[in-house]
Order: sequence, then C-alpha cells, then structure tokens
Amino acid sequence: MAGGGAAAETVAVENREWYIAGYAPNGLPNSNHLKLRTVNFSLTDNSIPDGNVAIKILYISIDPYLRTQFSGLGDGLSLPQFPINQVIRANAIGKVIRSKNTNFSEGDIVTTYMFPVAEFCVMPINWLQKINPTIGITLPDYLSCLGVPGLTAWVGIEKIGKVKEGSNVYISAAAGGVGIIAGQLAKFKGCRVVGSVGSDEKVKLLKEECGYDDAFNYRVETDYEAALNKYFPDGIDFYFDNVGGKMLEAVLNHVNQGARISLCGMISEYNKVWTERGGVRNLLNVVGKEVTMQGFMVGSYVNYFEDFRKEMEVYLKEGKVKSKHKINDGIESFLESLTSLFSSSNVGKVIIQVTP
Amino acid sequence: MAGGGAAAETVAVENREWYIAGYAPNGLPNSNHLKLRTVNFSLTDNSIPDGNVAIKILYISIDPYLRTQFSGLGDGLSLPQFPINQVIRANAIGKVIRSKNTNFSEGDIVTTYMFPVAEFCVMPINWLQKINPTIGITLPDYLSCLGVPGLTAWVGIEKIGKVKEGSNVYISAAAGGVGIIAGQLAKFKGCRVVGSVGSDEKVKLLKEECGYDDAFNYRVETDYEAALNKYFPDGIDFYFDNVGGKMLEAVLNHVNQGARISLCGMISEYNKVWTERGGVRNLLNVVGKEVTMQGFMVGSYVNYFEDFRKEMEVYLKEGKVKSKHKINDGIESFLESLTSLFSSSNVGKVIIQVTP
Repeated sequence: MAGGGAAAETVAVENREWYIAGYAPNGLPNSNHLKLRTVNFSLTDNSIPDGNVAIKILYISIDPYLRTQFSGLGDGLSLPQFPINQVIRANAIGKVIRSKNTNFSEGDIVTTYMFPVAEFCVMPINWLQKINPTIGITLPDYLSCLGVPGLTAWVGIEKIGKVKEGSNVYISAAAGGVGIIAGQLAKFKGCRVVGSVGSDEKVKLLKEECGYDDAFNYRVETDYEAALNKYFPDGIDFYFDNVGGKMLEAVLNHVNQGARISLCGMISEYNKVWTERGGVRNLLNVVGKEVTMQGFMVGSYVNYFEDFRKEMEVYLKEGKVKSKHKINDGIESFLESLTSLFSSSNVGKVIIQVTP
Repeated sequence: MAGGGAAAETVAVENREWYIAGYAPNGLPNSNHLKLRTVNFSLTDNSIPDGNVAIKILYISIDPYLRTQFSGLGDGLSLPQFPINQVIRANAIGKVIRSKNTNFSEGDIVTTYMFPVAEFCVMPINWLQKINPTIGITLPDYLSCLGVPGLTAWVGIEKIGKVKEGSNVYISAAAGGVGIIAGQLAKFKGCRVVGSVGSDEKVKLLKEECGYDDAFNYRVETDYEAALNKYFPDGIDFYFDNVGGKMLEAVLNHVNQGARISLCGMISEYNKVWTERGGVRNLLNVVGKEVTMQGFMVGSYVNYFEDFRKEMEVYLKEGKVKSKHKINDGIESFLESLTSLFSSSNVGKVIIQVTP
C-alpha cells in the first residue's frame, strides 16, 4: 500500500474499495449487501488519462442519504441506485498524488461528492473543487460545517424556514451532522431552539456547548406529544425535520398558525419500504394551521454555496460555530459507520479517516 | 311564517333554525347531533337594535368545512366549534326586510358567512356585504363562483399552485364546489387538467361542459396508482387536494420535481378522529421530489377578494366559467344537504334555497 505524500513515486498499490453486492430494500444493510474488495491501482502515466489526477482519499463523509442508494428502489430521495458490483460513491476529501493537469499539483487538497468509498482513485478535474484550508478550519470541517450537512442546515434555516428573531424552532436528530449546525444557525438569528436527540450525552452537548435553549432525549421522553407540550408551550413556528414518521406527526399537533417545516431527509424511514412506514395521519392540521411543508435536496441549492461558505467560514474562524465529529478509522469502518447512523450512537458528524 | 318581500309589515314570525344538540367526533352527524327548532322572531322596532337590520335568508351555502365545527374537537381546520344548543352559522345570502341603519334599505341583498342556518335573523350591518347582482350572475353564483368556493379555487391556483402554461394539474373532488371552479381556472392558464370524481355523470360534466382534459371516477378506477399512471404519464406538477388520505398518498408517488400541492380541506378525513385516519406513508417523496405542500384557509386571503371578484365577474358575464349548483329546497333540508357532501351524490355546489 502507498504511504503518505510521497506516493507519486509508487507505480502500483493495492486499493481497497466498498461496492454493493445486493440491494437492501428493508432493514439495515449488512455485509451481504455492502462489501470491501481489494483491487490493483496503477499510478503509471498510462493509467491516468490526460487532464486527470490520481488522488489519495483522506476523509469520507458518512451521511444518511447514502442509505437510500442501496435500496434498489427509486422512491424517497429519488437518488440513483448504485449499480450492483460497482463502487459506492460519497462526499470526501483527498490529496492529489499525481497530476496530469497543469492546474492541479501534487499535494493539492480536493473534494467532491463523487469520490469512491476507497483509498485511491483517478478523477477528471472538472469533478473536483480545491480546498485551501485556513487557520481554525480542519479538513473534517469541510465535510461537516462547510460541506453537505452545513449547506443543508443553512438552506433549511435561511431559505425554507425563513426564521425570525423569537421564532420557536424545533430540530430533530439535533446532534447529527445537519441538526447540530442548524440549531446553531437558528440561535444566531435570535430564535428559541429546542432539539431532540437519542441520548442524554447529546442533550448535554446541545445545551452546554451548542447554545440550544433546551433539548430532550426522545428515547426517554417517549410520549412525543407530552414532550412537545412541555418544550413548546407557545407552539412551534419552524420544524427542521430530520426524522419523519411519528415525530413529524406529533409536531403537526403542535404547530402555530403559518408554521413552516423543512424536510431534507427522514432517518426513521430509510430502512423501510414506503408501504411499511408509519403514516402521518393528521395532515389536516396543515390546512387549519396553514402550514408550509417544503422538501428539498441540497444539490438544488449549490448556487448558494458561495454565500453559505463565506458566512460559515467567518463563524468557524471566530469559533462561533461548534463542530463535532465522530471520526472512525480506516476504510474498513465504512459499513459500521453507515449503520451507526441509525442507532443514535454517534455524537456529531460521522467521518471516516481513511489513513489514520 | 312570513311570506315574500312584504315581510316588513309583519311584526312576528316563526323562524326555524338549526342548532347543535351534541358533537359528532366520528362518523356522519345525524339528527341526534343537528336539530331543527322553531323560535319566535320579532320584527318590532324594539327587537331590532339601532344600526342593525332584519333579514330574510334566501340561500345558504353548504360547505364541507362546516362538518369540522360539529366534532367537538379543535384539531384539523382549527375552526371554532359551535356551542351546544346554539344556532349553526354558515355562508348565506339574505334580503333586508327591515332596516334600522340609514345605509341599508328594505330589499337590499346582503351576504356574510356569519348567517345563522335559519329563515330569519337580525344582524349588525358591519357583518354584512351588499350584493348588487348584475346581468348573468345569479344569487347562487355569489355562493359558488363568487363566494368561498370560488375564492378558495382562485387562491389555490393563483397563489399556491403558481401554475404555468403546460403544467400538469390534478384536482380531486373535481365536481365539488371548489374543484369545479379550480379546474376551469387552471384551463384558462393553459394547463392540462385532469379531475377525479365519484360518478360517471360527473366525469361527463367535467369533460363536456367544464373543459377538463380528462376525468376519472375513483369509485370505478379504485387503483389510484394505476389511474394516475394512466392520466399523468408525464407526472403531476400541481395537485389541488380536496380529499386527503389515500389519494394524497397516491399522488405523492406521481409528482414531478418541484411539484406543488395545495391543501384546503380533506373531505375523506372529516368524519374520523385523526388517530383513525389513514396515514400518508410516503412523505419522503416530498424530499426527493422537492415538493411544497401548502395548507391554507381562505379567510387568510380576503385581501385578495377584490382582485378575485373582478376577474371572476368577467368570466361569469362572458359565460366562460360554468357554474353548477345542486339546489335543495327549504331550511329543513340542511342536515341531508350537509351529509350528502360525503356521498359523492351531488354535482356542483350544494346550496339550500330557504324559501322556494
């Protein structure tokens, strides 16, 4: 296997990559569905097309949406299914180790959400964005606060929620990659923010480190109606939904007139085919309370990326936004990292450090 | 009982009115819940407060939303419940038979949605709008095309749906008071419009008289998925939902990217408490297809009434909009008129003509 930055002199390495062996429409994907294989990876001039670069992958972002690309079904997030036997792709950060393009040099740090879940790859440069890390911003931050979860949080708060000072904001999966940022952005806008999470440790994190006004553990306070009554005595103006299902239903019994709900993913629903999901029975409240429920895919908002990046970089440099990462070691941790998203066991954004 | 327009000389009449004897949270309201009683109605000067007018009610609009005010529950449309033993109120048209206000004269035609479901009433004039019927517009039109259903249709199409030429528009309960107008408004915008209804007679009406491109009977084509596949081979851009439940769920499997759904009432849901309603299980599609679902109550759009009225009056005078009324005779027909809304048995807007 290739070592660190001096890999340009290596002409062939072993490359481990995750591929999909079979679809999992129901239940958690397991090692029958997602497999690791070792392939030879050549770094000779001939094996890298002109204009392309060879990359050593450093960090891979593990996001819930990936789950929907292993189902073999086309519904829900409507993302393309990974073809059987082909490598899985995800948002990641890598380092150029050989370049056949004059604009990219060895050592450049690059990102794209088309990276294979692998140790090495060759990429056309038009798929890549360069990263120039500045003081106070770590590489994992580029996959969380400054990456897909950060932009998702920003779009939900800025473009969908349209929150105002004093708005009562509720965020589910609030210690996850998106939720943890969304709550902090809402606080900067002067909102009252309450989050729900799956452990007492996360409740503590949100309240003590992330500026949330309050938080509750939905595994302890299992009567969601009672919990929302308690934490939202004045009702909910904006709900940043990350879970769907029963929590969304409970929220619809606690919304204020004209409330808004952003829908960007529903982690409680990904491991079930749609006919087996719990239905939301009280949508009539959407009429009476004149609620707007708006779904979005962050890919449709990339034109806002620069606005978002400028704002978020300032927050990060000033230490105003708290980022939290759960870093797992080695490419071999992919399957476990992915399934851990569904067990409330992680605090913060799950990221694989490919080479510890 | 008072006779026609010469009632001003009568000093006392018998007045029949509908009141609520008990709430019906589940199932159709019946004669145990809604009752007719006869009360004395005085037309002496003393019995009409200064500034008020006495009115003989001519036409009463029977709208599905009324059902939700007999449930004894506060959810759903969030409308106030009628207090037990008190008279039911609805949108109606009446004629002034005695006036103690200088701006209102005997014979004036007036409307408000605060009219009692009764034969006579006394009203403060600030609750009333005058109607000056013009050629080609009948009094029932003021309760349908130019009334609450018309404004609801207009808001859904203009303000929520934001439909464009070529948009694929689906309207459920399409021969009902709201749907029949909504489809015609969408056609004026150059949309392709398909409606679903509960009888073959209504299918014929929509296609032959109301300009719908197509229509289907959901009681015959009971596989909604298959029906929507057939009638929307290019998917649905805007769904004007009037029914909720299973049809809404089916639609969410057929929406196009960026589709919009207006929710203004769900006739399939009114006779069940929310926990017994069929849940919508595929809301994850709202994310993947970036759907906006927006609930509205027409009362929040009264500031658009003049814009709407001007447009609709032109359509009516030019004969461009086809109105369709199911006129039932006599105040005694209220309960039957109301429950008929839930049986697909009416074609067009249900209206009671109080005095035939």
